[in-house]
Amino acid sequence: MIRHTVVFTLKHEAGSSKERDFLEAARQLATIATVEKFEQLRQVSPKCDYTFGFSMEFADQAAYDFYNDHPLHRDFVENRWMKEVSAFQEIDYLPL
Amino acid sequence: MIRHTVVFTLKHEAGSSKERDFLEAARQLATIATVEKFEQLRQVSPKCDYTFGFSMEFADQAAYDFYNDHPLHRDFVENRWMKEVSAFQEIDYLPL
Repeated sequence: MIRHTVVFTLKHEAGSSKERDFLEAARQLATIATVEKFEQLRQVSPKCDYTFGFSMEFADQAAYDFYNDHPLHRDFVENRWMKEVSAFQEIDYLPL
Repeated sequence: MIRHTVVFTLKHEAGSSKERDFLEAARQLATIATVEKFEQLRQVSPKCDYTFGFSMEFADQAAYDFYNDHPLHRDFVENRWMKEVSAFQEIDYLPL
């Protein structure tokens, strides 16, 4: 299992329709066949500056690669993520 | 549900007995009554500099506070975490 996470901040105002639209569009990523346990999260630690998070799991590296290369993911990164996210950090985990 | 995560790097050499001992000691945190789904993880994204992660869940803020204030946690932070961790980032999540 590989858990892919990203914690991020949007350029949009908190609670705005643009914020809601971005998050709704991102839910399309969950329809990619190899994506498991897709979650949209709110980051709430005062010790961390980011405001949202996504988390998903893949069975193995091939499943992760399938997601990365999928047209839905590529389109989302190019047309939404790169335009609407102001800062982010990817963190990927394997069970220890 | 509150998911408490921390991604971190140890001062110890990778694969060392000191590294193993730190991780083993941290598993005591899972015995605190309000801790759910305790996980020890290896951070593997080349886009992230940290090497390990812990993740755990709490039913609510009271359960999280119970953990934070618990002697086992306080002792671990003071005697292990502050001495053996070189860098870390806490990230806490609520379901969106």
